[in-house]
Amino acid sequence: MRTTWMGYRNRTGPAGTRNLLGIVTTVQCAAGVLKVAVEQIKKELLPKYPNVDGVVAVTHPYGCGVAINAPMAKIPIRAITNVIRHPNFGGEIMVVGLGCEKLTYDRVLPAGDITPENVLTLQDYAGHDAMMNAIMEMAEKKLEKLNQRKREELPLSELLIGMQCGGSDAFSGITANPSAGYAADMLVRGGATVMFSEVTEVRDGVLMLAARCVDEKVRDRLAEEMKWYDDYLEAGGVDRDANPTPGNKKGGLANIVEKAMGSIAKSGTSPIVEVLSPAEKPTKRGLIYAATPASDIVCGPSQVASGIGLQVFMTGRGTPYGLDISPVIKVCSRNEMKDHWFDLIDISAGDVATGEATIADVGTEIFNMILDVASGIKEPYSDQYGFHNDMCIFNPAPIT
Amino acid sequence: MRTTWMGYRNRTGPAGTRNLLGIVTTVQCAAGVLKVAVEQIKKELLPKYPNVDGVVAVTHPYGCGVAINAPMAKIPIRAITNVIRHPNFGGEIMVVGLGCEKLTYDRVLPAGDITPENVLTLQDYAGHDAMMNAIMEMAEKKLEKLNQRKREELPLSELLIGMQCGGSDAFSGITANPSAGYAADMLVRGGATVMFSEVTEVRDGVLMLAARCVDEKVRDRLAEEMKWYDDYLEAGGVDRDANPTPGNKKGGLANIVEKAMGSIAKSGTSPIVEVLSPAEKPTKRGLIYAATPASDIVCGPSQVASGIGLQVFMTGRGTPYGLDISPVIKVCSRNEMKDHWFDLIDISAGDVATGEATIADVGTEIFNMILDVASGIKEPYSDQYGFHNDMCIFNPAPIT
Repeated sequence: MRTTWMGYRNRTGPAGTRNLLGIVTTVQCAAGVLKVAVEQIKKELLPKYPNVDGVVAVTHPYGCGVAINAPMAKIPIRAITNVIRHPNFGGEIMVVGLGCEKLTYDRVLPAGDITPENVLTLQDYAGHDAMMNAIMEMAEKKLEKLNQRKREELPLSELLIGMQCGGSDAFSGITANPSAGYAADMLVRGGATVMFSEVTEVRDGVLMLAARCVDEKVRDRLAEEMKWYDDYLEAGGVDRDANPTPGNKKGGLANIVEKAMGSIAKSGTSPIVEVLSPAEKPTKRGLIYAATPASDIVCGPSQVASGIGLQVFMTGRGTPYGLDISPVIKVCSRNEMKDHWFDLIDISAGDVATGEATIADVGTEIFNMILDVASGIKEPYSDQYGFHNDMCIFNPAPIT
Repeated sequence: MRTTWMGYRNRTGPAGTRNLLGIVTTVQCAAGVLKVAVEQIKKELLPKYPNVDGVVAVTHPYGCGVAINAPMAKIPIRAITNVIRHPNFGGEIMVVGLGCEKLTYDRVLPAGDITPENVLTLQDYAGHDAMMNAIMEMAEKKLEKLNQRKREELPLSELLIGMQCGGSDAFSGITANPSAGYAADMLVRGGATVMFSEVTEVRDGVLMLAARCVDEKVRDRLAEEMKWYDDYLEAGGVDRDANPTPGNKKGGLANIVEKAMGSIAKSGTSPIVEVLSPAEKPTKRGLIYAATPASDIVCGPSQVASGIGLQVFMTGRGTPYGLDISPVIKVCSRNEMKDHWFDLIDISAGDVATGEATIADVGTEIFNMILDVASGIKEPYSDQYGFHNDMCIFNPAPIT
């Protein structure tokens, strides 16, 4: 078993799998400007800095027109706070605000980081050119620093990855997810940190997870998160049976209990060392449960905010889903899916169903691909095509 | 007073102010593919169809991982249903789904429109090239049809516009908003339909609006919408005092009552003929109140779903906000703002404060610019730069 990988070491926290300039908005109002600016940075500046893999405009719907002091506002604020420090951004902070928004810099940055080098307020600049030039200048300074970074051989303990499944079918729980679980076990055994999530897709098998919590405190945190989500759904007039999709059902998953059994399989067999609220950063190494929504496109950004360097995504029905901050490896549950989407799905676990491979075989294939993608040796399909979803952060608080 | 404009007539509903190919996703999962495809359409196909003004990927965070049967799910579903029929899309339907999502086509389209000409399901295509080619082919057929469209002289009754304000200051309520209100009165007098919104920013002056409702039924609808929003905020542990922003306060607006007084001014003095829930389409002509959130970046998409052909946006602090479906004209409250953002703000109402112009003068200027932009004679700054915000649709229901 491989025990090292090639990553970008950070001063604190897990190492990066990519070397990206991440420019984070404090408010959606700034998103239009930032998206145009990032295209210009990619065209005019990025080619001069060959060690930088890309530039990401981290735009999201939060920041103003929201109940910023609502009890649950802490979830989206934490997501933005933590994504600024994503391991793939190498500790370089570039935050763009408008100037009148509710999500002021002090809500997402410590006082010492709120400097003219790190934050840029659009309302401070006199007109279009001044604004765009200021963004370009700040970006260039950050690119110069990022360009100094080099991959180095690192132990698995420097790696944090996420597991997710979506568009699941009846095979997900017997091929793709257990294979991913096998890979998760290999990683954890090697000292890495693996995060899995999706409350409504573990809720009906939560006793299995409770039994794997390392201690009572972790188990109580798990119970707390389950209760929070139960209450959240109830307040909206639904329960977790709102989860299975038409696609899940067509794929043979009759209800949320069956879906949960398959979903949990991706966590492998390791003890759960920590339970996190959505978008929190792990403080331990090993297998982590982060209690995010199960929605693929919200779980992904939540895990990214928690700092995952890549995500492994198991699917039965097929999805082109990808993230621009962290590469996504897609594993399908049946060979028919891989035949159909031969150049969209990275790995098929279908041979487990046909008897041509064992869970250990496919699990080892996934483990190796994780290390290859994390090390920059391989690029999953979604990154090759630039298929990247939006940063749909979770905001259970009201908007105003 | 001008009584006509040049628009794209539609079979039903208001005329278009632009001739756009709008490609609407049923689910965020398809967004990554669609965004890449739209760039290719713009590069390879659009130049062949000179009468088409643009191609818009209408992506949003809704569609799956949501409680689709929750009582409040009707709001985001209605927004997507109605945006497919936006007047600027000329009745050409192009909807892209994944295939396993909860927001199935029958939730957003009548049975007769769910045809291979109108809807495209990514999971039906074998691999990347087949998928991209299918999108390109469908887009080309729609572009051919849209290219036949021509502007024609139309009465004002064919025009539906929206009014919004954001980043307001103490001058908004005495310069920009009353001037916009004057323009709104001119439009309504000419037979046009004008929509204003933002519940938390009219709530504390709602008696003034109630008195202007044309009848008891409309007044009761207004009361219903106010109560709904009060309850929604209360359920999230806040009240409407969560509204004013740090920028509002710096700009001299001490609280939500002051803010509401200014906000209401943009509606002019016409009677309110209809009250709508968020993203509903007007069924009457005249002044309409649509009870959307006040959040700029949610109110805008909600009004777009209601079918506005353009939006007039008043600001005190300044915002680069824009929408890709409907042009946004920005009006500022002080000349200092216009001096500072000379090439970002379209009109200054500041002369009303200095005594160099009357509300009627600036109101007429806004009225004329509305007709010029609606007619395609002028392009507001946000469109010149491509500063466009995301389609942040309002989803008060839980996600799963």
